[in-house]
Amino acid sequence: MIKVRTPTILVNFKTYAEGTGKQALELAKAAEKVSLETGVYMGLAPQLVDIAPIAHAVSIPIFAQHIDSISPGAYTGHVLPESVKEAGAIGTLINHSERRLTLAEIDSIISKTRELGLVAVVCGNNPEVSAATAVLNPDVIAIEPPELIGTRIACSKAKPEVVTGTVRLVRRVNSDVVILCGAGITTGDDVAAALRLGADGILVASGVVKAKSPYKVLLDFAETLARQ
Amino acid sequence: MIKVRTPTILVNFKTYAEGTGKQALELAKAAEKVSLETGVYMGLAPQLVDIAPIAHAVSIPIFAQHIDSISPGAYTGHVLPESVKEAGAIGTLINHSERRLTLAEIDSIISKTRELGLVAVVCGNNPEVSAATAVLNPDVIAIEPPELIGTRIACSKAKPEVVTGTVRLVRRVNSDVVILCGAGITTGDDVAAALRLGADGILVASGVVKAKSPYKVLLDFAETLARQ
Amino acid sequence: MIKVRTPTILVNFKTYAEGTGKQALELAKAAEKVSLETGVYMGLAPQLVDIAPIAHAVSIPIFAQHIDSISPGAYTGHVLPESVKEAGAIGTLINHSERRLTLAEIDSIISKTRELGLVAVVCGNNPEVSAATAVLNPDVIAIEPPELIGTRIACSKAKPEVVTGTVRLVRRVNSDVVILCGAGITTGDDVAAALRLGADGILVASGVVKAKSPYKVLLDFAETLARQ
Amino acid sequence: MIKVRTPTILVNFKTYAEGTGKQALELAKAAEKVSLETGVYMGLAPQLVDIAPIAHAVSIPIFAQHIDSISPGAYTGHVLPESVKEAGAIGTLINHSERRLTLAEIDSIISKTRELGLVAVVCGNNPEVSAATAVLNPDVIAIEPPELIGTRIACSKAKPEVVTGTVRLVRRVNSDVVILCGAGITTGDDVAAALRLGADGILVASGVVKAKSPYKVLLDFAETLARQ
Repeated sequence: MIKVRTPTILVNFKTYAEGTGKQALELAKAAEKVSLETGVYMGLAPQLVDIAPIAHAVSIPIFAQHIDSISPGAYTGHVLPESVKEAGAIGTLINHSERRLTLAEIDSIISKTRELGLVAVVCGNNPEVSAATAVLNPDVIAIEPPELIGTRIACSKAKPEVVTGTVRLVRRVNSDVVILCGAGITTGDDVAAALRLGADGILVASGVVKAKSPYKVLLDFAETLARQ
Repeated sequence: MIKVRTPTILVNFKTYAEGTGKQALELAKAAEKVSLETGVYMGLAPQLVDIAPIAHAVSIPIFAQHIDSISPGAYTGHVLPESVKEAGAIGTLINHSERRLTLAEIDSIISKTRELGLVAVVCGNNPEVSAATAVLNPDVIAIEPPELIGTRIACSKAKPEVVTGTVRLVRRVNSDVVILCGAGITTGDDVAAALRLGADGILVASGVVKAKSPYKVLLDFAETLARQ
Repeated sequence: MIKVRTPTILVNFKTYAEGTGKQALELAKAAEKVSLETGVYMGLAPQLVDIAPIAHAVSIPIFAQHIDSISPGAYTGHVLPESVKEAGAIGTLINHSERRLTLAEIDSIISKTRELGLVAVVCGNNPEVSAATAVLNPDVIAIEPPELIGTRIACSKAKPEVVTGTVRLVRRVNSDVVILCGAGITTGDDVAAALRLGADGILVASGVVKAKSPYKVLLDFAETLARQ
Repeated sequence: MIKVRTPTILVNFKTYAEGTGKQALELAKAAEKVSLETGVYMGLAPQLVDIAPIAHAVSIPIFAQHIDSISPGAYTGHVLPESVKEAGAIGTLINHSERRLTLAEIDSIISKTRELGLVAVVCGNNPEVSAATAVLNPDVIAIEPPELIGTRIACSKAKPEVVTGTVRLVRRVNSDVVILCGAGITTGDDVAAALRLGADGILVASGVVKAKSPYKVLLDFAETLARQ
C-alpha cells in the first residue's frame, strides 16, 4: 500500500537557480510529461516557496525538502509539517546530507509524518546510518554517499558496495521500507545499475536539474525503470 | 527613501495554525483591508509556503520569516534569498529570537538583502544586541525581549527602558535605521506607548494572529498610528 | 570482554556547581570509596576541564560527557577525542539529551571511539531512538526519557514500559550492548526496579551530584547492585 | 587597566595534535620561556582538558578556546564558564570562526565573563562583524579573515585593508578595546606589519603550534613586539 505512494524517481530541486521559481515550474512540467508518457511514478522536491505553485500546476506528487520537528505554535522561521501538507506536498525529505538532523528530530519528524499521512523519505550517508533510520520505520530510505553528491560519478557504479551494503543492513531490520539510491546519477545506465544492486528507485538532483534537457534525462531514467 | 519601503506594522504569522494556509490568506486579506482603509503601511510575514499565494492575493508587502546565508547551489532544505524574492516577498525577518543566527550569518544575510534589493528587518533581544546589529546597517531593527513574546504584557508598557535603551544605543551608531518595537503588543494603547518611547512602529504576532478578530485589532493599531 | 569495561553505575556530573572543580574531586573520591568497598564497577563523567585532575586522583574509570566528530586539526573550541583519552578518560557519553547530535555525527563518533579504544555510551530519549543507535554497535546504550531527567521520579518506576520497550527493541538488533537506565534515579529501590526490567545498570546525575551525601546515595545504589 | 590584563601575543592551540596533551605542555613551556626572556605578555589557549595541567605548570595566562552561555545546572557536555576559571583560565576566546555563536550568545557570554572577572576575546571574520561586537564591550577583539586562517599568507600583508578597516570601524564605537590581528601570521615581519596597521597585538595558531621550533617563532614575534 505504502509502496504505491512512493516514487521510483524522486527529483530534489535543492536551491539551484535552475530549480527556483519559474524554472522550477518548467522543470516540474517536464517531469510530469515524462511521468505521463512512461507511467513511471515520479516525485518532485522543490523549494518551500515553490511547493504551492507547482502542486497546483502539475499532477505528480510533491515533496518538501525538509520539515521541522514542531507543532503549530511560536516557531518563527521554521517549517511546520502541516503547512507543507496544506500547500500540496504529500511527503518530505528528512535528514538530507545538506540538512542533517539530530537522531531525536528524525524520530520525531517521522512520527509527525505518520500522524499527518505524509510520506517520510529519510536520507542516510552510509549503510550503517541508513540501517539505523530503518529502525524508525520511515516509508522510504535514500542512501547517498555525500562525497559523490553533485558529481557525475554514480554511486551505483563507483560504490556498488554502498548500495548492496545498505540493502543488506536495512533489510535485516526492516523488510518493507522502499530503498532509493542517489548521488551522481546522470544516465539510464546508472539507474539500471542501482536497480540491479537491489535499490527500488533513485533520488536525483543536479543530474536532472542542471541538465541541458531535464526532459531527456528523466525520459532516459524512466524508460530504464519501465523496462525492469 | 528606504523608510518609505518599511512598514510601521509588521505582522509575523509564525507557525500558528491561525497563520497557516487558508487561514493565513484570510488574515492577509483582513490586514490589507485595514491598510487600505487607514493608509497605514502594513507588512506581513507568513510562512515560506504561503508567500506566493498571499503575495498574489493581496497588495500589501510580504516578508519572509527567515532566509539562509546562501547563494544558488546545493543546499537542500535551506531558504534561498532569491527564491523568496521571486515568490513575491520584498524583505525578510532576520535573527528572530525563535530563529537565532550567528553574527557572521546576520552580516552575510544583510549583504544578500542589499544585493537583491530586499528589506532587512533584524531582530534583537535586548538594547545591546540591537545596537550591535545597527552597525551592520539593516533597514529595520525590531527589538523584542524574548520573555514577553507571546504574552499579553506589552514591551512598551512593562519594559519601557528596553525601548528607550534600544533607541538610544542604536541611534549612537546608526541614525537612519527604522526601529520597531515588539513582544506582547495587543492594543492601540500599547502601540501609542511604543511610539512615545521613540519606536517608529511595531512588530506583532500572537496579538493579531490569535485574536478573535484580527481585523479589529489591526484597525485599533492602525488608527493609533494614523493619529500620531 | 567489552562488558567488563562498562560500568554498572555511571555518574554524570553535568555542569552542576556541586560537580565542578574541587567539589567534583570530592565527589569522585566518594564514588571511588563506594566502588572499592562494594566492588561495584562505577564510572564518572565530570566536565572536560576536570578530567585530568580527577583521572590522576582516583582509580575508577573516567568518561567525557561529549566528544566531537573530529580528527586532529583546526577545530577551535571543539573536543578532540584523542585529547580526552590522553587526559585519562576511558570512554565518553554520546548524544545526551542535553547535547544532541546528528545521526551522522553519532555514527562517526562511535567509529572514532572504536579506533581509539574508548568506550562509547550512547544516550537515547525513547525506545525507538535507542534501538536505532543499537544498529551502530556502541558499547553501552543509556535510555533516559528527557521529561524525567532532573526530577526525583525514577524512570524505572514511573515509566517501566520505557525500560522494557528499550530492552526489547534494542535486543532485536543487538544482543551484546550493555543497557543502562537513567532519569530520576535517587534510591536503591529505583536501581532494583531498573534491573528487574532488564537494565544492566544505571546512569545517574542530580540524584547523586546534588545529594546531601553522594557517598550514602552511591552506597545504597551499589549495595543494591551487589545483591543482584 | 584592562589592557594590562590582555596579551599582545595569544596562541590558539586549536585541536592540533601538536597542541594536545604532553605536546601542549611543551609548547606552553616554550611560550613561557619566550615571555620571561622578552617581557612580552603572552597568552595561551589550549584545549579544555589541558587547561588545568598547563595552568599549573606555567606562569603565563591561560585562556579557554570557547565557553558556553550557561550557568551551573543541567547542561551535559557544555562548557561552564565557572569551570574554566576554577581550572586556572583567566579568559576565553569567543566566536572563533571555527566555533561561531549566535549574536545573543556572544552578548550573554561577554556578560558572563564580566561577572566572573574573565577576559573576553571576541573574534570577528571581517571589519563590520568586528565593529558589531565592539558595541558589546569585550576586552579584546581579534580580527581573522577565515580564508587566510591556517595559510602562511599573513592577514597583515595580504589584506592590510581588513586590519585598517577593522581598526577604523571598531574605534568609531569603542575606543578602549584591544585589537588583535590574526590569520596567516608566521614571521616577525607579519607581526610588525600588523602593528603598523594599528593592531595592538596578534592571535596566532598553526604558525606557532605547527612550527618546527615554536620557541624560535615566538621569540621572533616577541622581539618584534618588544622593539615597538
